[in-house]
Amino acid sequence: MSNKQKRYFLSESEIPAQWYNIQADMVNKPEPMLDPVTREPITVERLSKLISVEAARQELNTTDRWIDIPEPVLEMYRYYRSTPLVRAYGLEEALGTPARIYFKNESVSPVGSHKLNSALPQAYYCKQEGCTNITTETGAGQWGCALSYASKVFGLECAVYQVKISYEQKPYRRSVMQAFGAQVTPSPSMSTRAGKDILTKYPNHQGSLGTAISEAVELAVTTPGCKYALGSVMGHVSLHQTIIGLEAEKQLQMAGDYPDVVIGCFGGGSNFSGIAFPFMRHNICDGKKTRFVAAEPESCPKLTRGKFCYDYGDETGYTPLMPMFSLGHQFKPANIHAGGLRYHGAGVIVSQLIKDGLMEAVDISQLRSFEAGLMFAKAEGIVPAPESCHAIAAAIDEALRCKESGEEKVILFCLSGHGLMDMSAYDQYISGSLGNYTISDEEIEKNVSAL
Amino acid sequence: MSNKQKRYFLSESEIPAQWYNIQADMVNKPEPMLDPVTREPITVERLSKLISVEAARQELNTTDRWIDIPEPVLEMYRYYRSTPLVRAYGLEEALGTPARIYFKNESVSPVGSHKLNSALPQAYYCKQEGCTNITTETGAGQWGCALSYASKVFGLECAVYQVKISYEQKPYRRSVMQAFGAQVTPSPSMSTRAGKDILTKYPNHQGSLGTAISEAVELAVTTPGCKYALGSVMGHVSLHQTIIGLEAEKQLQMAGDYPDVVIGCFGGGSNFSGIAFPFMRHNICDGKKTRFVAAEPESCPKLTRGKFCYDYGDETGYTPLMPMFSLGHQFKPANIHAGGLRYHGAGVIVSQLIKDGLMEAVDISQLRSFEAGLMFAKAEGIVPAPESCHAIAAAIDEALRCKESGEEKVILFCLSGHGLMDMSAYDQYISGSLGNYTISDEEIEKNVSAL
Repeated sequence: MSNKQKRYFLSESEIPAQWYNIQADMVNKPEPMLDPVTREPITVERLSKLISVEAARQELNTTDRWIDIPEPVLEMYRYYRSTPLVRAYGLEEALGTPARIYFKNESVSPVGSHKLNSALPQAYYCKQEGCTNITTETGAGQWGCALSYASKVFGLECAVYQVKISYEQKPYRRSVMQAFGAQVTPSPSMSTRAGKDILTKYPNHQGSLGTAISEAVELAVTTPGCKYALGSVMGHVSLHQTIIGLEAEKQLQMAGDYPDVVIGCFGGGSNFSGIAFPFMRHNICDGKKTRFVAAEPESCPKLTRGKFCYDYGDETGYTPLMPMFSLGHQFKPANIHAGGLRYHGAGVIVSQLIKDGLMEAVDISQLRSFEAGLMFAKAEGIVPAPESCHAIAAAIDEALRCKESGEEKVILFCLSGHGLMDMSAYDQYISGSLGNYTISDEEIEKNVSAL
Repeated sequence: MSNKQKRYFLSESEIPAQWYNIQADMVNKPEPMLDPVTREPITVERLSKLISVEAARQELNTTDRWIDIPEPVLEMYRYYRSTPLVRAYGLEEALGTPARIYFKNESVSPVGSHKLNSALPQAYYCKQEGCTNITTETGAGQWGCALSYASKVFGLECAVYQVKISYEQKPYRRSVMQAFGAQVTPSPSMSTRAGKDILTKYPNHQGSLGTAISEAVELAVTTPGCKYALGSVMGHVSLHQTIIGLEAEKQLQMAGDYPDVVIGCFGGGSNFSGIAFPFMRHNICDGKKTRFVAAEPESCPKLTRGKFCYDYGDETGYTPLMPMFSLGHQFKPANIHAGGLRYHGAGVIVSQLIKDGLMEAVDISQLRSFEAGLMFAKAEGIVPAPESCHAIAAAIDEALRCKESGEEKVILFCLSGHGLMDMSAYDQYISGSLGNYTISDEEIEKNVSAL
């Protein structure tokens, strides 16, 4: 074992200086997003009322394969990137699998997850374009922490609407946001029309990502100098996250391997897209046969059981209409601990890729996810985020199939974040007080037929 | 700024394969520890009733400058080492200092602090020597987490006595220990003679490190196949932690720098020794003039205001008598958030180095530590552990003196851990509900005169 390398890093000069835009290589481009009022295909001009002009351009760019990373963003990337690519010898041994398992450890970022990869460019573009303020929503708080820090870096004031139940039950990430100087409001709040309407109807509403998005969007469009930033779902977010897979590709070359299977957990698709798309381009362009597996929670199964349709990204219906796999924008996901995966829709690019058979999805139950996460913690010494546990469970399943078949497959997954702020969830799992949440066909049907 | 390197890593083959034993280079060796019963100088045989034989040998080894790191420990080091040496451009800019500030980021270890560096060899030696169980104490839980994981790695059962107030107020690290399979008991407990005696006298005793040590030591000496492991204070712990400074020396060479000042926070001395001793050898042996600054809390000032004397390491008096700077083994430190710095004594090696003028100490108030920590968080994106905030405050003070004098000093400090599990402390600081704790000369006198 002594000569086996465990971790692979890139030197600062080897860190990729461009993101990969998979839209340029897609044979079937995503169908257009539609203006929620006019139902016309959305334009950069319209979209940039909400988000930065540059992010809007990237969102609708289906021609340029490579997008330059601005130098000030690259500067900041160098503070925590490359993240290590780790050979999971401990997990392999615990499983007794002939598979070679690697994980890309995004948990080492200063805010504990991959979210900073997109928060930095989004904040940077807003600042460049003369904004003074930026706003967003957050569930458990990974994205809110990332945007709070990125705003501090580039000199923007940041306002975060945090899903109320998380704000109250998981106060640590709220504290991190406040430590970075952000203003954090539990959502639904009385500070927006959307929030007031919901609270009038449901005074004890515990909040949801859809509601918090409505509030942040409303603040952005009604406040001069303020733009909105989203942490997942959108194509430009996926674009920024491709730094994960682009690094991993170089790091796997150092290890002399290429993945047979690439796995990421799936909420809106940002970490999945980030690790998958750079390898997927070799399937599209170079005839590689890698499989790509999105691991979603059993209780929020938009990829495995949702309907492809035009739907809103938020609960109120402020966002553009997006052609995507969805459970309906008013779907209320069960209160699982993987807060980052509690989202009804899948994003337009991933939805098209699913339709085209370029990727697949599996669903993982809450108990299975924590079982896998705890096995990983004991084998590798890192307590994974509840979201990441879904990717780990899918990776373990692949590795166990290799054990049966004797195949020495190369499995790569993204460890999107650590779970050090989610220990109460592990407590509940260990004490046996955690359950699974399934959802009936009828309930799915009810939500999506309303669209 | 684009060509300035931010982080320095070593390749796995460059990670040092030996620890540095400063005792071999000390002109004045530490005075002997004494058996608490016979008052004779302690022997390896006697000490190894408590800790592993190999750790006992290292503790009393004053001749071998370099100690080989066992291959299985080195294997595990490669999972998270080298830790990055980071040039703190953000902090430099925020301060407007001409100083070049570097920090060694031990917070990226899987358990979030430097403690794993010694937990791994201690668990390994116990396993090699045929032990089945290992026990220790922990305050906030950094050391307990590290030993829990190291025990899992090498196949030992681990029992941790956690200071009761931390067990109840900061449950997350307890959960991490349990996730790694450790048995965690709030201390004082009814499971030991020492615990029962204390609870009989003070039924609402909230616990202290001294008490928890008594309990763990008692368990170890009364349980066949069980050894005790300590996370700081002892010479062998400092030895293991020299991996920090040995790496930093190589990494600073990559940066073309050598430190004028080396700073660590100081509880029992483990992270301070780890970053300082490898550079201190060049003061002792090669005529270098680096300053070494231990940053201790104002409320527990054993280095700046304690008395050099023979004292116990625990509250009950089970441990050997150690010649050290102490506030008295029954000193009850104020309940500051930097739980890892709430210890009455300083360890025999550091105490001798202080006496010999080879290092110095400063004290930092609680409010000043959090002010510095928050400034660091905003400038560098990493929320530091409350303990590490003390080192940051001392480093900022040095950098501000450079600003006044115009000197371009090289300042190196150890970021011993992250504060993501201590956010309630930041909450209290931000909301203004945190205070300082000072201690009168009379109180110190009272405690140390009782020795």
